[in-house]
Amino acid sequence: MSKLFTVAPDSDFTLANLPFGVFSVGSSAPHVGIAIGDKILDLPALAQTGVFDFDTAVLSRPHLNDFIALGKGVTSRARTQVQGWLREEQSSPVQPEHLVPREEATLHLPIRVGDYTDFYSSIEHATNVGRMFRDPENALLPNWRHLPVGYHGRASSIVVSDTPVRRPVGQILPAGASAPVFRPTDRLDFELEMAFIVGKDSTLGEPVPVDEAEDYIFGLALFNDWSARDIQRWEYVPLGPFLGKNFASTLSPWIVPLEAFDSFRTSGPPQEPAVLPYLKTGGKHNYDIHLEVSVNDRTVSRSNFRYMYWSMVQQLAHHTSNGCNVRVGDLMASGTISGQNPDSFGSLLEITDNGRTGSFLTDGDTVSLTGHAGEGDQRVGFGEATGNILPARPLRP
Amino acid sequence: MSKLFTVAPDSDFTLANLPFGVFSVGSSAPHVGIAIGDKILDLPALAQTGVFDFDTAVLSRPHLNDFIALGKGVTSRARTQVQGWLREEQSSPVQPEHLVPREEATLHLPIRVGDYTDFYSSIEHATNVGRMFRDPENALLPNWRHLPVGYHGRASSIVVSDTPVRRPVGQILPAGASAPVFRPTDRLDFELEMAFIVGKDSTLGEPVPVDEAEDYIFGLALFNDWSARDIQRWEYVPLGPFLGKNFASTLSPWIVPLEAFDSFRTSGPPQEPAVLPYLKTGGKHNYDIHLEVSVNDRTVSRSNFRYMYWSMVQQLAHHTSNGCNVRVGDLMASGTISGQNPDSFGSLLEITDNGRTGSFLTDGDTVSLTGHAGEGDQRVGFGEATGNILPARPLRP
Repeated sequence: MSKLFTVAPDSDFTLANLPFGVFSVGSSAPHVGIAIGDKILDLPALAQTGVFDFDTAVLSRPHLNDFIALGKGVTSRARTQVQGWLREEQSSPVQPEHLVPREEATLHLPIRVGDYTDFYSSIEHATNVGRMFRDPENALLPNWRHLPVGYHGRASSIVVSDTPVRRPVGQILPAGASAPVFRPTDRLDFELEMAFIVGKDSTLGEPVPVDEAEDYIFGLALFNDWSARDIQRWEYVPLGPFLGKNFASTLSPWIVPLEAFDSFRTSGPPQEPAVLPYLKTGGKHNYDIHLEVSVNDRTVSRSNFRYMYWSMVQQLAHHTSNGCNVRVGDLMASGTISGQNPDSFGSLLEITDNGRTGSFLTDGDTVSLTGHAGEGDQRVGFGEATGNILPARPLRP
Repeated sequence: MSKLFTVAPDSDFTLANLPFGVFSVGSSAPHVGIAIGDKILDLPALAQTGVFDFDTAVLSRPHLNDFIALGKGVTSRARTQVQGWLREEQSSPVQPEHLVPREEATLHLPIRVGDYTDFYSSIEHATNVGRMFRDPENALLPNWRHLPVGYHGRASSIVVSDTPVRRPVGQILPAGASAPVFRPTDRLDFELEMAFIVGKDSTLGEPVPVDEAEDYIFGLALFNDWSARDIQRWEYVPLGPFLGKNFASTLSPWIVPLEAFDSFRTSGPPQEPAVLPYLKTGGKHNYDIHLEVSVNDRTVSRSNFRYMYWSMVQQLAHHTSNGCNVRVGDLMASGTISGQNPDSFGSLLEITDNGRTGSFLTDGDTVSLTGHAGEGDQRVGFGEATGNILPARPLRP
């Protein structure tokens, strides 16, 4: 039992976790910290004791990018050191003044996101959407089982948990109409996703082989890819989603290093037909991470990151297979993660069967994503990715 | 006739132009300059004389973003001051040592691009593509005349002119096959586009009205959105272009401030049906800028930026109409700019009628985009956006 912090029985922030984030207290400038129990370890403050052997100026930045760019050799060692110090408190340089109550801190967007890519890698989600909007008999398009379908999203509108989300206005084609109107969406939805943060630059023109892709993944977070289904539906042919998605996406404040999930590795679903050689992997590249969505504190979905048909290393190998480069701070999201049963669907589009059995989000609703692997003192989680819906702005006359 | 520089009769870099870029000479760090005739004005060097009243540290950065972020009040005044000094040389602070021969300079990517959006705003291009791949009788999709269709592109792989472009490898579905193969593209194409650089941050949740959008446009550049048509074709449903585009896009090294094109304003094509109120503009928002594409020094297309159906201010108003924010350094490209006749088509896809009347790009080909408004001492242009095709990397066994 530590005197420095308290880890509640259902806390995401055990000693097995130690995720990185960016926080401030009062008028302090945002800087890097590690969540532990009910506290945040102030890394620049701890660094002043001289315990770290890297350039600790990166810990005073308002984002994790420069710290991450030091490479896993540095970031993993720093985390392991902190883990040891928090465990064996007698010989530890960590002092009470290095720890801040989490409830007193303001959490900031932890990553200055470079490029954001959204995949579409849950076969249950892709099948559900295809069944609703295309052919129920051929719900998956021909390319889906051959490659991890993805598209580029908008980085500027990625916000940290607890940032309110304003209901977007846009062009919508009313049922039976031949011309669109401009009005607030009435099909505002969430999408339950996970995201990974790229931790290493690759070189333009040089693909990252699938068996090296893990080196490029710094850590994981929760991600809500808010969607306006009516705006999306009218605009998305032929070039894909745009204003139906890019008004906001919510990221959890804590980025959990990939290695914290090492004991939660699992196999993905079988891939049929066999994938092309550049996507072939050995070993286990899915992760057993329980995910939940609540709307106004009522759980509406229980899903799991293990359901992903395409793994993160396959996504990254595919993304770079044409020579496209990735950079530290790029964010790649999974796409909506649905399971096989309606209580595991990751969007209201699916849960309500496109609005037939329930409604989309209303003003004032609060949507929270949570997720964790393991239990008790082995639990590794993210906190929350939460957003509250503000009413649309009035239109100009 | 200036003693400091020589403006050749067909130079893009007259006193009426004065575009901004980033350059280095020998081992100097990249910094900000202005192209004039055969020279580059070294702005940090000139700034050392104390002639500027803004924080000139921004001129020593390896990108224009921080300079642009000072706002048009500063950047336009600086350009006007330089224009005066270069005209009236007797009382000018500009000395010969402030000017560098352009041929001795290395030009760098002038913008640290935040988000990159690609529109699809040429009605001739959209019609040509729709005719080839969908229904010749209904080439334009229903949404096309109601909104400027666009999608998010990849910022990391935007490169400056003269960067070689490696032929991408990817999944391709051979004609008649039921499963894809992984091989180099054999339908490598260019796309003749213009790009504008965002010069002012907007606020998330707050649309930029169309009649204020011009304030957010810093300047223009040439842009080649290289495309692998076979990769694109297999991957693009339902979420749009991805690896068929994101292996490289080439930007001209010089960003011409929007005000330099003020006397080349013109009306766009009539918009039928009438656009929704948030897209309605008064005045002239198209620009008469002659554009050319050459492949291995042979001109293959002559087009014009004036052909755009959707103007830049409409693109920007639409992009932010849902609350999506824009930031300094965002890049928005026009989409391929085609005219009505085959000799004005902006891609080989259109010029060769999808490969039927000619071939796509072969290894070693050099593609150059050029563009300018006006003639003689009023000519305002961009230099070139050039790329040479390298052969594909060998596949791993």
